[in-house]
Amino acid sequence: MIGGASGTSPSLASFTDLYELTMVQAYLAEGLTDTAVFTLFVRRLPRNRRFLLACGLATVVEYLEQLRFTDDDIAGLRSLGRLSDACLNWLKDFRFTGDVHAIAEGTPFFANEPILEVVAPLPQAQLIETLLMNQIHLQTLLASKAVRVVTAASGRSVVDFASRREHGIDAAVKGARAFYIAGVDATSNVLAGAQLGIPVAGTMAHSYVQAHDQEGEAFRSFARSFPGTTILVDTYDTLTGVRRVIDILQESPGARTIAAVRIDSGDIAVLAHEARRLLDAAGFQDVGIFASSNLDERAIATLLKEGAPINGFGVGTSMGVSSDAPYLDMVYKLAEYSGRGRTKLSHGKPSLPGRKQLFRYEEDGKAVADVIGQAEEHLPARPLLHPVMLNGRRTPELPTDLGAIRRRAADEIARLPRHLLDLDGSDAVYPVRVSVALESHHADVRERTRTL
Amino acid sequence: MIGGASGTSPSLASFTDLYELTMVQAYLAEGLTDTAVFTLFVRRLPRNRRFLLACGLATVVEYLEQLRFTDDDIAGLRSLGRLSDACLNWLKDFRFTGDVHAIAEGTPFFANEPILEVVAPLPQAQLIETLLMNQIHLQTLLASKAVRVVTAASGRSVVDFASRREHGIDAAVKGARAFYIAGVDATSNVLAGAQLGIPVAGTMAHSYVQAHDQEGEAFRSFARSFPGTTILVDTYDTLTGVRRVIDILQESPGARTIAAVRIDSGDIAVLAHEARRLLDAAGFQDVGIFASSNLDERAIATLLKEGAPINGFGVGTSMGVSSDAPYLDMVYKLAEYSGRGRTKLSHGKPSLPGRKQLFRYEEDGKAVADVIGQAEEHLPARPLLHPVMLNGRRTPELPTDLGAIRRRAADEIARLPRHLLDLDGSDAVYPVRVSVALESHHADVRERTRTL
Repeated sequence: MIGGASGTSPSLASFTDLYELTMVQAYLAEGLTDTAVFTLFVRRLPRNRRFLLACGLATVVEYLEQLRFTDDDIAGLRSLGRLSDACLNWLKDFRFTGDVHAIAEGTPFFANEPILEVVAPLPQAQLIETLLMNQIHLQTLLASKAVRVVTAASGRSVVDFASRREHGIDAAVKGARAFYIAGVDATSNVLAGAQLGIPVAGTMAHSYVQAHDQEGEAFRSFARSFPGTTILVDTYDTLTGVRRVIDILQESPGARTIAAVRIDSGDIAVLAHEARRLLDAAGFQDVGIFASSNLDERAIATLLKEGAPINGFGVGTSMGVSSDAPYLDMVYKLAEYSGRGRTKLSHGKPSLPGRKQLFRYEEDGKAVADVIGQAEEHLPARPLLHPVMLNGRRTPELPTDLGAIRRRAADEIARLPRHLLDLDGSDAVYPVRVSVALESHHADVRERTRTL
Repeated sequence: MIGGASGTSPSLASFTDLYELTMVQAYLAEGLTDTAVFTLFVRRLPRNRRFLLACGLATVVEYLEQLRFTDDDIAGLRSLGRLSDACLNWLKDFRFTGDVHAIAEGTPFFANEPILEVVAPLPQAQLIETLLMNQIHLQTLLASKAVRVVTAASGRSVVDFASRREHGIDAAVKGARAFYIAGVDATSNVLAGAQLGIPVAGTMAHSYVQAHDQEGEAFRSFARSFPGTTILVDTYDTLTGVRRVIDILQESPGARTIAAVRIDSGDIAVLAHEARRLLDAAGFQDVGIFASSNLDERAIATLLKEGAPINGFGVGTSMGVSSDAPYLDMVYKLAEYSGRGRTKLSHGKPSLPGRKQLFRYEEDGKAVADVIGQAEEHLPARPLLHPVMLNGRRTPELPTDLGAIRRRAADEIARLPRHLLDLDGSDAVYPVRVSVALESHHADVRERTRTL
């Protein structure tokens, strides 16, 4: 974490809203340490999303396994002057000993569906809220945007160019992983590649061309250093750039010193057509065209609809910040405490009580409806919540192989009704129902809560 | 960095787009190691921004001072199979030895203005691009949004509640700092508080109330644990919650066990008026009302325009992701290499050549116009770019005290023409001109570039 300024180095354990700690202290003081169930869900989908893709579980499980308050954390908390010795001592000995039930990364889900439930002593389950939300929110947000980009590219390669515009270091690394799970092919981010084994891509920027006195000289030198590279052709004049690439290719027939050209400005459709015509006319049908320049799923869809001969897309900002929907209405709500269901009556913000299960009904391999039920129900459908941590330890049901998670995402997305993949709004919503048993439990809990 | 999966632990040095490294390798192979000037600027302001507030410089200087490629970084880079031994050896010995000229954190700026220039050997100046952009972009984006929120709150306290919705851990910590610089009073984020010395705030969530069988019992217990606290009153019925707070206050006259109530749902204006009426009627004029619930600068302005008796605001999502403008069109462009100005001719993406200075003209303490000039010009106005690093070391001109940076921001914002602080669009734009000397240099460089 760069930017620290104080003498101490608090750990990720201190990454929490203060109110989690004041609540922990009050729970401890009052003996409210029975088992609690918290449910993570998204209240409403953003306007441009038909579904979301779950992502971030691996981070959360790793965090829960490793969560310890160091001496520096405790010193920092003590210096706030607000927490009791009893609370600080409890934090010093903290280990997460609870259970986590969650839908696998790469699973599509809908509004109000439980995507993760924590079952743990109340102070523990409360304490972990901030980081858990921060990570599942970010990674789900970015994976859900990337699905749209990948869908629009319909089979052409997509490369993540977003590192410079994503919100900080963590977002860029987690983003690269979320994008990869959603079907993006590679990232420009070397750290993400090194940490996660994601393919890394990138060749040159305009500055490289500008640092040379002649554009052709820049292209020739780069192709010599990196045979089979992609050349950025739009620094001065795009089609002149393409002609210079052709000149270089013609100097060494047979050796494909340049594999592709990249266009990063102007009317991409027109320039791609012209570039394709020039390359084909010179006999370089196998030299690809790669496009970037403020692309999002709509721009990509439009380019392909116009028949632009583009082989791959570099996508940055719009995917990296999910620009059309930069946040989700995601919440982590107490659903049960000490064996009794809990709910809120706050205006417009309902939550379903108790431990739950999410069931997906499928016909001929296609999802047709989801039902949110009670955890102990057995409905004739695929249950999506699985125990991924029990007693503070990960279970074999936690998927960890990134390639397998990516394949699962592709498979789960393929099972969705096709209209959910439309980029634009559609009136046909996917049906999500609450089971009779859960509805009845909810009514009981609301009734009891009204009389509090 | 949580979430790492490979055996090695690459450092922040590996946080770079691959193309920075391939360009470094090509520069080294070609002997292009003369001095380069890169300029960081924002091409266009987002629709809802009249100005931006510079932020993130401290992070960048610290990064440049500490930037080293560890053995794990080199191993990771080697495993890409794309970089030469010469390049890897150069990286192993890398130290940043260049200069950085920048406007101070907390300085307002406008489109196309240079906010930071790097003067360094070309491979060095290229290598640092990704992290530099990532950090200045994020922190400037969030500070610029927070100024609007603080302005709307017109003197009432604003608390950062955004950690759970900001894009990752880094964004939440850097965000807390950016918000504080922009005038936000406190953050809920304990890690940011501990690292940076920012005031930390927070009391309770709905889950605390829900975990109790009686709301009044929850309030009473919490007030006992934290005398002078803020009580969240809207879990079930807001005004019933307020009445319960009044009951508790009346039990111990004179002792202010509860200092404020928080309303987090419903029609905030109506509820705040009603809550105020109830509190006042019971003689508790000094008990404050704190509002949260999806607030942004427009909602706050509307509430205050309606005369809602609110003493402070908790602001989360909209500020944390800068939801109405979640990115800036920020770029880092080669402006000079080996003593010669450089520019691009790409469609719609001009950049000014050479080392520059940014001058702010002021009359009667108010900014009236900015002029972008050449670095060596002496115009009768306040120069805003200062050398903050020379030969790889920070200078005394780098502001480091967070409180002083915050005060400077307030002072600089107060010097802006008042209409720039309007939340809504205004046709009156702040004038930014290019000096005659720089305009002429730009024309020369464009002319020379056209013939390349």
